[in-house]
Amino acid sequence: MAKKVGVVLSGCGVFDGAEIHESVITLLALDRAGAEIVVCAPDVDQMHVVNHHTGKVAAGERRNVRVEAARIARGPVADVAEVDASSLDALILPGGFGAAKNLCTFAVDGASCTVDPGVAALVRAMHAQRKPIAAVCIAPALLARVLGEEGPQLTIGTDPGTASALEAMGAAHVSCPVDEMVIDRDRKLVTSPAYMLAGRISEAAEGIEKTVKALLELA
Amino acid sequence: MAKKVGVVLSGCGVFDGAEIHESVITLLALDRAGAEIVVCAPDVDQMHVVNHHTGKVAAGERRNVRVEAARIARGPVADVAEVDASSLDALILPGGFGAAKNLCTFAVDGASCTVDPGVAALVRAMHAQRKPIAAVCIAPALLARVLGEEGPQLTIGTDPGTASALEAMGAAHVSCPVDEMVIDRDRKLVTSPAYMLAGRISEAAEGIEKTVKALLELA
Repeated sequence: MAKKVGVVLSGCGVFDGAEIHESVITLLALDRAGAEIVVCAPDVDQMHVVNHHTGKVAAGERRNVRVEAARIARGPVADVAEVDASSLDALILPGGFGAAKNLCTFAVDGASCTVDPGVAALVRAMHAQRKPIAAVCIAPALLARVLGEEGPQLTIGTDPGTASALEAMGAAHVSCPVDEMVIDRDRKLVTSPAYMLAGRISEAAEGIEKTVKALLELA
Repeated sequence: MAKKVGVVLSGCGVFDGAEIHESVITLLALDRAGAEIVVCAPDVDQMHVVNHHTGKVAAGERRNVRVEAARIARGPVADVAEVDASSLDALILPGGFGAAKNLCTFAVDGASCTVDPGVAALVRAMHAQRKPIAAVCIAPALLARVLGEEGPQLTIGTDPGTASALEAMGAAHVSCPVDEMVIDRDRKLVTSPAYMLAGRISEAAEGIEKTVKALLELA
């Protein structure tokens, strides 16, 4: 029977939402492996909107995380607050600044960040049910915040500042090259640096494809 | 030496812009083949903005095609009107309604559509220089409009209504399954149905990967 995998998106676009390449590569790898995909997102406004051509914040503009995530999903997206962990076999969070701006406040508050209640509840419930969770790029920061008490082994690549912030939340940071991933087998967590390190899309793809494979093997 | 390939995007999101999966799969296939990528888009407002979660037009909202395309490109995007065909070895147009709403007016005007002047000029110049052009999903309609006088062999899959519109513009429509593509060797054109037919991302990926391979072989 097909494994059912939740994909938590944080908008649509690297600077204010879900990193698009990471999200699509995740969906493609899951589909090629025969998984059933449930895309979900919080039904909240983005922290802000960034003009991706200029790199500047688009003052006064507002966009909803779930509505923008639907661009990547090609249609309706579940409200993450309404997703029942019992209905899923695994969960994956692609990266992008949205993971650190909309799913949690890591981009602003660092180690003292707070996590969207629906996302935090889903991560906690999946973990309590001993189901595997993967996180890509900056999204492992969110796992560190929610599951830090357990001292999970996570990677965000090699950036010392970000790694310290993860350790301040209780995680053990493991350095990892762009085309690899880190598996915490005891806690069923898989993380990969992707665009924390990638200079080109094919580099990000290699680590994400391995991450999805490992996630499904743990499920 | 790496082949330099222009990728013409029409926004960011299947219903009002570039189809995101098709665009990312195209970028990944090009990068994996070692191509140098130049993303470009017209610097114009989208025909409209569609809420991809509800499927309804977001009344009063405005977005710029080039600025939204920058979400897929992860940064600045060239103005298609300023791209010199002499600098490129090949060109590819992913699909999505944006190709038929923002790059040309096919979604509204059918066979009597007009094409964005910058896009039309680039397609004409590439073709005049005997360089290959690929188009995915609904984007072949634009090729039919610009190059129809030559009777190019193109596919948009199997939809009879859309196929008739292509033939009304002078193209010879060739039916094609989702995981394949059609090559017009004389005119150096490669087209593939992708989400005109695909029910899942892995189906779209198969045809697009073959399309990119064929495009680079012709370059």
